[in-house]
Amino acid sequence: MKKPQINKRSLGVNFGHDGFAHITVWAPIAKEVSVVVNEKKLDLPLNADDFGYWTLVTDGIKPGDKYIFMLDGEKKRPDPASLSQPESVHGPSMAVDLSTFKWTDASWVNHKMDAYIIYELHIGTFTSEGTFDAAIEKLDHLVELGVTAIEIMPVAQFPGGRNWGYDGVLPYAVQDTYGGAEALMRLVDACHAKGLAVVLDVVYNHLGPEGNYFNDFGVYFTDKYHTPWGNAINFDDAWCDAVRLYYIENALMWFRDFHIDALRMDAVHAIKDLSPTHILKEIKQHVNQLLTLTGKKHHLIAELDLNDPVYINSLDESGYGVDVQWIDEFHHALRVTAGEPQTGYYSDFTGIKHLAKAYCDAYVYDGIYSPHRLKTFGASASKNKGNQFVVFSQNHDQVGNRMLGERSSTLVSFEMQKLMAAAVMVSPYIPMLFMGEEWAETNPFQYFISHTDDDLVKAVRKGRKEEFKAFHAEGETPDTQSEDTFNRSKLQWQLTTQPKHQQMLKYYRALINLRVSYDALSELNRDNLSVSSDADKNTLVLQRWHEDEKICCVMNFSDSVQQVDLPENI
Amino acid sequence: MKKPQINKRSLGVNFGHDGFAHITVWAPIAKEVSVVVNEKKLDLPLNADDFGYWTLVTDGIKPGDKYIFMLDGEKKRPDPASLSQPESVHGPSMAVDLSTFKWTDASWVNHKMDAYIIYELHIGTFTSEGTFDAAIEKLDHLVELGVTAIEIMPVAQFPGGRNWGYDGVLPYAVQDTYGGAEALMRLVDACHAKGLAVVLDVVYNHLGPEGNYFNDFGVYFTDKYHTPWGNAINFDDAWCDAVRLYYIENALMWFRDFHIDALRMDAVHAIKDLSPTHILKEIKQHVNQLLTLTGKKHHLIAELDLNDPVYINSLDESGYGVDVQWIDEFHHALRVTAGEPQTGYYSDFTGIKHLAKAYCDAYVYDGIYSPHRLKTFGASASKNKGNQFVVFSQNHDQVGNRMLGERSSTLVSFEMQKLMAAAVMVSPYIPMLFMGEEWAETNPFQYFISHTDDDLVKAVRKGRKEEFKAFHAEGETPDTQSEDTFNRSKLQWQLTTQPKHQQMLKYYRALINLRVSYDALSELNRDNLSVSSDADKNTLVLQRWHEDEKICCVMNFSDSVQQVDLPENI
Repeated sequence: MKKPQINKRSLGVNFGHDGFAHITVWAPIAKEVSVVVNEKKLDLPLNADDFGYWTLVTDGIKPGDKYIFMLDGEKKRPDPASLSQPESVHGPSMAVDLSTFKWTDASWVNHKMDAYIIYELHIGTFTSEGTFDAAIEKLDHLVELGVTAIEIMPVAQFPGGRNWGYDGVLPYAVQDTYGGAEALMRLVDACHAKGLAVVLDVVYNHLGPEGNYFNDFGVYFTDKYHTPWGNAINFDDAWCDAVRLYYIENALMWFRDFHIDALRMDAVHAIKDLSPTHILKEIKQHVNQLLTLTGKKHHLIAELDLNDPVYINSLDESGYGVDVQWIDEFHHALRVTAGEPQTGYYSDFTGIKHLAKAYCDAYVYDGIYSPHRLKTFGASASKNKGNQFVVFSQNHDQVGNRMLGERSSTLVSFEMQKLMAAAVMVSPYIPMLFMGEEWAETNPFQYFISHTDDDLVKAVRKGRKEEFKAFHAEGETPDTQSEDTFNRSKLQWQLTTQPKHQQMLKYYRALINLRVSYDALSELNRDNLSVSSDADKNTLVLQRWHEDEKICCVMNFSDSVQQVDLPENI
Repeated sequence: MKKPQINKRSLGVNFGHDGFAHITVWAPIAKEVSVVVNEKKLDLPLNADDFGYWTLVTDGIKPGDKYIFMLDGEKKRPDPASLSQPESVHGPSMAVDLSTFKWTDASWVNHKMDAYIIYELHIGTFTSEGTFDAAIEKLDHLVELGVTAIEIMPVAQFPGGRNWGYDGVLPYAVQDTYGGAEALMRLVDACHAKGLAVVLDVVYNHLGPEGNYFNDFGVYFTDKYHTPWGNAINFDDAWCDAVRLYYIENALMWFRDFHIDALRMDAVHAIKDLSPTHILKEIKQHVNQLLTLTGKKHHLIAELDLNDPVYINSLDESGYGVDVQWIDEFHHALRVTAGEPQTGYYSDFTGIKHLAKAYCDAYVYDGIYSPHRLKTFGASASKNKGNQFVVFSQNHDQVGNRMLGERSSTLVSFEMQKLMAAAVMVSPYIPMLFMGEEWAETNPFQYFISHTDDDLVKAVRKGRKEEFKAFHAEGETPDTQSEDTFNRSKLQWQLTTQPKHQQMLKYYRALINLRVSYDALSELNRDNLSVSSDADKNTLVLQRWHEDEKICCVMNFSDSVQQVDLPENI
């Protein structure tokens, strides 16, 4: 069986030192495969190799050439491992030589996970231009804010120019409207120059609904498992080796060729894999091999809705070796404490007691019955370290999954926003901000798409309306396809000069500065922590210490003055 | 959440010391549940309890009474935890008091797994009568043969009187045509009196296609996963706690109330469970609790087609804690070595080299590419002990899954049968025989059913024909529904008096005696083992040793005399 390559891409079109294009595509279903280079009027047949791979070494394609695969002489399809789609998802791919970028980050050393303070952003709405290059202009703001990493929502090519990124269908191609591969490299290089790590959000659990031609190539999906997006990606059924290789090499590419510091893998609970080596474990094993080769450390972060520490336990402990996971439960507990109505998934959360539990145990549901899920849920993560969990008071999902996409700024008081920010920042976990929250951005972050398939557009509109029938449902659903919805979701940078927003920004800077200035806060040690809470008063006292240093955080989530008994040893 | 009870059944109708019937049924979908006792013209409403359970304590039902649950005043359904179905699967259940059986096996101590030599039998065809009581009459034969355990194919109530047992739909009810619960107890008691352990085959991965009323009670199935039998049993979706409890208590019942020594759990790879605690692990944890309570050791054996040691690794090693698994690959390698055509699943097996590997490594596919499965398959089980694997040259599946159900006796020469039997018996694994192979029974073991649903009968007939289009397909498919097919599959005990069959029987006795007489064979230590094989000659030399004792087994699977180089140290 073909094995994933550590030191270079093996799929798609790649350029060797010999100047030739080395082409490899997996298409076990096809009887004939050729590569068509339109402008050169070339149609070059590929050679059938073992296990359904097709290969060719040719001087017929040069960087910048557009090409497309012809399957069985009738289907023209973009390269599944395309690096560039200058005419969006349905058009030809463009050959790119990743080795020509002039990196200036040789002295960059990735932060330890403990030192990450993450700023999640969406390239399309982070700036008015919506590009990687425009984002570079904002890095000084982030450095001044004090965050240490940006997390970029998915950039894999999606249809049109407006999408959160989770509808990507070409996982190796960098969205053309954002600026493409080289522009992403420029952004990463600029981040490293300013001391910022870069986390990239990648989607290994499904492909988007428009422009997914994978089934024309091979058995990328299996009907053994159902996911919210239909059949699961085939990680353990017949033909899965090639699919596994495809995603393993994708992870390696971002780290090796794009100098990405960490991957945030979307909803890994929807990755279904019952083989002896879970695909996440195999990704980790290969990332470790890359580390051996380059000496560079890269982190793996997972969005996980299972409360199962097997994902974040080390390979030595029979875990999958993912370094870090998001914990939505901290968010849910915090928001209910701050007054969020207990509807939908918030119905499992009672407020301050659960927030206290989240501070101590990370998982709120750690083997107890969940009324919302109608089952006993989770297991204890008491053996895992604080630096294995990412917490937040907002993120793209928690904001955007509301019908109107309101941020905290328009939902809770100014003071409550500050308290929520502090609750995150003093936690023994890795904090994450969602772009704009640092100045209490008032624009929403709504759900937007730009599909070209009318039926799909209608279906998404309809689905969106139905989703909110019983949950955050006041008002009219924004039109997901409309450009207005997209524009309405952009950050208003001019707000940062207005007094109230400036005040919040200063507060966030002070808060982050506080966190990094005291070991008692920045050492993510859950053993040196105690919490007490009072459900009647809606107050919580969190103590954290390190050696002789001790910090006591007193939080009042009620809307009135409360008297709180401080711990005796203060 | 309701927790499984260790010391007694909590589901169905049970009798307390108070003489009252304690009734519990899980029916979260129902608005009203009552129990109807026909002959007494009673209709007793149950009380709604937490989590969808309904309960009643009543003196209205006594042991021997027939009863049925009435759901929402319109659906009459047998008890999912019924112990007895005197009118088959669609009729009423019968209340049974399990505590009244007079056991005589107080001094019985279960064998260690290493001492198991298993004899698999099907109650319906083992004797001409096809009952538990008739089987008791044959136990002396088994004792004389030298086996130490019988393994009973599933006895959970199925439609009609003819079925392998895998179409059972009432997992707690003992098949009425076999004699029911008390007759099974008599058989177990008789086995223990003669030093035989009893393994019971149980099916926790699906329910049969006729008489499955579970969906009228609760969410026993989930469409998250597909299995060969449709939607998977719900071990990890909403409402799964009650389903898990149902199966955990089922396992406990067989051990505690029926004195079963080991469960053989059917095709556990079709049990889909991605919760932090796999259901098999939770069963093991509860069996351990039972051990603490009673001091009695019970074994868990799994049929497993995943080559994944996580199933048989101990709880301490993050495994599921199943004690033992079947390895079909030993069988496949052995049969191909013995001349079986390499079609279907045999196509992955090349013969003697794979047999040699199976002796050493248990799994043949331990992380290598499987051409038949079209994927890399399995992981190494090198750390697992020999007493964690069951091997055989025949079993009900391998015989009965052939279109004509031919046993080895009609497929290979008399001498080859002996060699195959020896190959199993000298292995460092737990050997298993399939009933009748010890005298080279010539009757087949065919696939038989006795469904009452005509469409289903037709569908099974059709499916069976299609299954064998390309595999063992000579001749006409036997009619699965016909009583002749069932009768044709019964053992012919009179053969044991015929010279050739008697010769085979003596050979098996000698073989088993050899195994138990030498520690080098009976100590299941894979470290003290070496194998060499010669693919051209189709010969294999297996050495096993224990302290000063050494056994060298020279096997010639070719049809001619071969010269074999013996190891130097013989």
